[in-house]
Amino acid sequence: MIAEEMINLGEKKSAIRENFEYGKQRAKQIGKEKVFDFSLGNPNVPAPAGVRRAMEKLLNQKDDVELFGYTPAQGIFETRKAIADNLNFRFGTSFRPDNFYITCGAASGIRIITQALTVPGDEYIIFTPYFPEYKVFVEAAGGKFVEVKTRQEDFQIDFAALEQAITEKTKAVLLNSPNNPSGVIISEENIIWLAALLNERSALYRHTIYLIGDEPYRELVYDNADVPYLTKYYKSTLICYSYSKSLSIPGERIGYVLVPDEVEQSGKVYAAVCGAGRALGYVCAPSLIQQAVAECAGQVADLSVYKNNRDLLYHALQTYGYTCICPKGAFYLFVRSLLPDSAAFCRYARKYELLIVPGDEFGCPGYVRIAYCVPVSQIERALPWFKKLAEACITTQASEL
Amino acid sequence: MIAEEMINLGEKKSAIRENFEYGKQRAKQIGKEKVFDFSLGNPNVPAPAGVRRAMEKLLNQKDDVELFGYTPAQGIFETRKAIADNLNFRFGTSFRPDNFYITCGAASGIRIITQALTVPGDEYIIFTPYFPEYKVFVEAAGGKFVEVKTRQEDFQIDFAALEQAITEKTKAVLLNSPNNPSGVIISEENIIWLAALLNERSALYRHTIYLIGDEPYRELVYDNADVPYLTKYYKSTLICYSYSKSLSIPGERIGYVLVPDEVEQSGKVYAAVCGAGRALGYVCAPSLIQQAVAECAGQVADLSVYKNNRDLLYHALQTYGYTCICPKGAFYLFVRSLLPDSAAFCRYARKYELLIVPGDEFGCPGYVRIAYCVPVSQIERALPWFKKLAEACITTQASEL
Repeated sequence: MIAEEMINLGEKKSAIRENFEYGKQRAKQIGKEKVFDFSLGNPNVPAPAGVRRAMEKLLNQKDDVELFGYTPAQGIFETRKAIADNLNFRFGTSFRPDNFYITCGAASGIRIITQALTVPGDEYIIFTPYFPEYKVFVEAAGGKFVEVKTRQEDFQIDFAALEQAITEKTKAVLLNSPNNPSGVIISEENIIWLAALLNERSALYRHTIYLIGDEPYRELVYDNADVPYLTKYYKSTLICYSYSKSLSIPGERIGYVLVPDEVEQSGKVYAAVCGAGRALGYVCAPSLIQQAVAECAGQVADLSVYKNNRDLLYHALQTYGYTCICPKGAFYLFVRSLLPDSAAFCRYARKYELLIVPGDEFGCPGYVRIAYCVPVSQIERALPWFKKLAEACITTQASEL
Repeated sequence: MIAEEMINLGEKKSAIRENFEYGKQRAKQIGKEKVFDFSLGNPNVPAPAGVRRAMEKLLNQKDDVELFGYTPAQGIFETRKAIADNLNFRFGTSFRPDNFYITCGAASGIRIITQALTVPGDEYIIFTPYFPEYKVFVEAAGGKFVEVKTRQEDFQIDFAALEQAITEKTKAVLLNSPNNPSGVIISEENIIWLAALLNERSALYRHTIYLIGDEPYRELVYDNADVPYLTKYYKSTLICYSYSKSLSIPGERIGYVLVPDEVEQSGKVYAAVCGAGRALGYVCAPSLIQQAVAECAGQVADLSVYKNNRDLLYHALQTYGYTCICPKGAFYLFVRSLLPDSAAFCRYARKYELLIVPGDEFGCPGYVRIAYCVPVSQIERALPWFKKLAEACITTQASEL
């Protein structure tokens, strides 16, 4: 009598969430420092000092009605202008404040975009491995979620697979780079090919196939890796962004949807984004943090902690016999499971108090995700257990475990 | 090729929003103090000092990860506990923290509840006059929006009309008291009757009809008026609340959905609420303001400004020949239009620089809404123009205007 899918979505815990809750229970039993929770992608570095400074300044200088009043549904003009200016400076683009719609993070951005675009029958193409909530958002908007496998060796686009998957019904291709959970950055060569293919198919089917970039990890890259700015390669690109990682403020829920002028029917798309925000119950994004972002849109938290963590964990796991691609961004290692069934492998890892998430969650069985946005001391304490886990799996038949 | 309803929702400005934008333009032409914008329900009193104090204390005492990190999807435990304690103290209820799901204001609360409850064919009953976005939310959730007229003399429930409107398909009745736009508080007698009718029909149709209370104006009442607490009268009551008015922080987007244990299938309903929040892209409500609410859940802004405004405007308009019910809560006067067509009346009022909203927006043609959450000086300057408007309408044939 009440919506079954909603009950299921509420009751069925994701493996990530289930791990997290198991970890909290387990910590009560044996002590927090003996449980090694690598399951959550929860930034653990401080925000840049500018965020706090901006908030304190705002609290000192502005009156309550200005500070806490409703903002326009599309977001405060000064915030949108600061974002446009920052992107234009960094990427040589020429966005206007009116190309931006401020959202409660990238999750709401993707949910809003899918709601704005979808007509019955529409399909969305998502590359594996992917952030699991994409499926929830696409399906809740009435779209069909179409998975396309990437190349096993490097998680770059498998164009033969993609060419087969794109059909007349394809509304959009969603690209998450740097990727959660693999840490891979899609190469410029791939993006150029992808743009050519989307142009060709858009012409063939006589309707635009949109490219949606989900970019919360854009600034979280290592070794000066370059993340090509998608709108420069393909006209009908929409960007979803979140300040969760760059400013390390995931709980504040602030980000944006960008609809460049070059997008096919950009005025209609922008109007539909506004309409979708309204239909989904978003009146406006929270006002104080919007005003803070206007002051620190260009700042980035000190992400060197993640780089140290990556280096430490990646090299140690290599030595122990694990296989994985060295991530160029984000804060995850996506490691080959040492047992054929990655869920069984994750359950087995719990014997060593290691909490990691099966790749099945991300559309990629045979792998596990290790989130290294944790204190370095946790990694140091966990390393001997990762070693023992590998030894146990490598020297023992899976069937005996 | 993109979702038409979403484009329409984004492009079609509400009369409220259209008035507001006209007002801004007009202010540029003739000066801000000469335009009298009574169209927006935007609180204009400061937050209680506790909000700012709580934020400053939090910024001083907590580290960034605690302050700005993800919160649980259902909201921070301490916040939910503070809310439960406050309601239990005030209303003698016995809610637990786990009965609450923290939302981005009451709008998202209603959107989430309708998403959680609706199965195809469901109908929602809404009394006129009503907040226009209810229609957007109910329809976006896939429900049918069923308007039921209230009694013309006092906007209390017309039970003959309600009995006809409730059918086997009725999923819920939505009650907004104190009401936007009428300022009316639904009487305890009405609520007792309503509960009896809902119990009777739930038994007859063998399924629960839920009562949804939308209560952002609960604390905004005059002359110590009592707003009966709905959960004490009807078991299957769900409450949507926002701190927008009580704490005067509408831009911060913070409120809750309350699912008491007594609600039929309360566990399933709560799970569906969590699932709906997820499906609509709400990861969590913003973290800093959640933590501030934990500290000041019981506080209320100084609302005496609204009381003064109501008294001044209500008595003056009466004298000039306008007719309206004296509002017992909220900050709106819902006045009989002085022309048969209330939209024409509002257009005509612009000649006197008065910006007011036709009742048609609220499902109630023949009335206009005057929002008096404005500086008292604006009311004082506007009164002579309200007088002239009345004289012009009363002494002139509508057709000649």
